[in-house]
Amino acid sequence: MTRIAVFQMSAAIDPDHRLARIVDAMQEAAGKGARLLIAPELALSGYGRGPAFNREAQTADGAWVRALGVAAARHGIGVIAGFPEAAGDTRYISAVMIDAAGPDAPVIYRKGCLYGPYEKRHFTAAGPTTVIAEIAGLKVGCLICYDVEFPENVRRLALAGADLVAVPTALPNGAPAEFIARHIIPVRAFENQIFVAYADNADSEGDFTYQGLSSIVAPDGSVLAAAGEGGDALIYADLRPGDYARSRAGNPYLKDAQRQRLIQASTA
Amino acid sequence: MTRIAVFQMSAAIDPDHRLARIVDAMQEAAGKGARLLIAPELALSGYGRGPAFNREAQTADGAWVRALGVAAARHGIGVIAGFPEAAGDTRYISAVMIDAAGPDAPVIYRKGCLYGPYEKRHFTAAGPTTVIAEIAGLKVGCLICYDVEFPENVRRLALAGADLVAVPTALPNGAPAEFIARHIIPVRAFENQIFVAYADNADSEGDFTYQGLSSIVAPDGSVLAAAGEGGDALIYADLRPGDYARSRAGNPYLKDAQRQRLIQASTA
Repeated sequence: MTRIAVFQMSAAIDPDHRLARIVDAMQEAAGKGARLLIAPELALSGYGRGPAFNREAQTADGAWVRALGVAAARHGIGVIAGFPEAAGDTRYISAVMIDAAGPDAPVIYRKGCLYGPYEKRHFTAAGPTTVIAEIAGLKVGCLICYDVEFPENVRRLALAGADLVAVPTALPNGAPAEFIARHIIPVRAFENQIFVAYADNADSEGDFTYQGLSSIVAPDGSVLAAAGEGGDALIYADLRPGDYARSRAGNPYLKDAQRQRLIQASTA
Repeated sequence: MTRIAVFQMSAAIDPDHRLARIVDAMQEAAGKGARLLIAPELALSGYGRGPAFNREAQTADGAWVRALGVAAARHGIGVIAGFPEAAGDTRYISAVMIDAAGPDAPVIYRKGCLYGPYEKRHFTAAGPTTVIAEIAGLKVGCLICYDVEFPENVRRLALAGADLVAVPTALPNGAPAEFIARHIIPVRAFENQIFVAYADNADSEGDFTYQGLSSIVAPDGSVLAAAGEGGDALIYADLRPGDYARSRAGNPYLKDAQRQRLIQASTA
C-alpha cells in the first residue's frame, strides 16, 4: 500500500509564497503517511504570470527544484509539482518529479501539447514523451493538463509500465471542465486499468478561474478521493494495485490493444 | 438536422420474432421522422444462441439483410443491426448498415475485438477495420460492443471522417457495465467531437443479463437521449453537427492529435 496526496492549490496564493505552501503541504501529507504529493500545473509560479514567465522560469537544477529536493529528503515524501522551465532561450511548462530516496536525481516532464493561445504565446510544446519516475516504489508517469485529454498519451505511459499517471493541471472552469474532471479522468484510469491523480488549481487570479475537482481515481474507474470546486485541499488515497487484479482480468484493454495491433510503435 | 433512433431490445424477444420486431421499430421510428434506426449486437438472432450460432448465421446477402433492405426502402429509413454472419466456415459478429436510398448496397462491419470466452468460442475476431457508410446524409462509422471501449477504434473512425459512430452492443450487467455506459460512451464522443449512438440489449435470456442504458451522445459529451436499464425502448435524437462548431473549436482534439503525431498510420 502506498498513500499519496493531491494538493489542490488556490490561485489566490501569492507567487512569493507558493514554494513554502507546497513544502508545508508536503510536511502535512508526510505526517499523515503519504509518500508522494502531487501539486498542480505551474504550481511554483502560478498559472497566470503571462509575460513574467520568461524571466521567472527556472532551470531543471534551479532553486525551486533544489528546495523541493531538500524538503523531500527532510520530510520523507516524494513530490511532483509544475513550474515554468528555462532551457536556454526555450520555456516549457514542466513538472519536476522527486523521490524522497533520491532527491538529487529529479526527473523532468515537459508538457507535450499546449492548450490555446495563452500557453502558446509563452511556452514551447515538447511533443509526446514517455517520462516515468520511480517514486515510493510506484512507477509514476507524468502528463500535464491538456495532455491527459488525449487517450494516446495515457495509453503510452500505461504500456510503458506506469502504475500511476500524475497530472498537474490548470483546468479553466466553464463548459467542458466539469466533464473533463468527472468523466475523462475516470475513463483514462479505467481504459488502461491504472491509477490517475489529477491535481488542479482552484479559485481565481486575474482573468483565470479554475475548476478545482482534483481527484485520485482507481483502475476500475472508481473515485478514491475528490476535492471540491474551490479552495485549497489536500486529498489522500491508499493505492493498492493488487486490489484491482480482478478488474484488470475482466477488462484486459492493454493486452487486447496490443494483440489487436491497435497501438503502433510509440512516437517517443 | 437528421433524426436518428436507437432501438434497445429486450432479450426476452423470441429469435423467431426478432426480424419482425426490428422492422416494426423501423416503421415506428420512420413515422416519427427518424432516418436511421440502430439495433443492438446480434439483434437478429439474440446474443445467447451459443452453439446454434453456427447454423443460424447468415451470409451478408442472406434473408435477414434482404428483408431489412426491403423494409428500409418501404419505410424510408436506414438501419444498422447486428447479426451472426457466415462467411464460408468463418463466423463473425457483424452489423449490416443499410441506407434507405441504396437498400441493395448494404455495408457490413465485422466486430474487431471479441470479448471473453463465450464470443471467442463461437466467432472469429476481424481485427481493426475502418467501415463508414453514408446513411441519410451522415457518415456513419460502426463498432460493436467491446470495440468502443478502445479509444483507438473511435479515433480511427473520427479521423476517417465519421460524423456518428453507431455501436450495436450487448453489455452484460454488473460491475463495469454502468461505468462503460455512463462514462466511456460520452468520453468517446467528446474526445473526438463526434456523435455516438450506443444500442444495447436489455433484460435476461438464459445466463445473460444486459445493462440497457442505451444512449445517443453529442460531440460535447452531453447525453441527447438515454434508455433505462430494462425493457424495449425507442429513443430519438436530432443530430445537428453545426451546433457543435464552438465545442470543436474549443476542443480541437483531432487536429492536435494529428499535429502532435500522436496517431500513427491506421492499421486498416
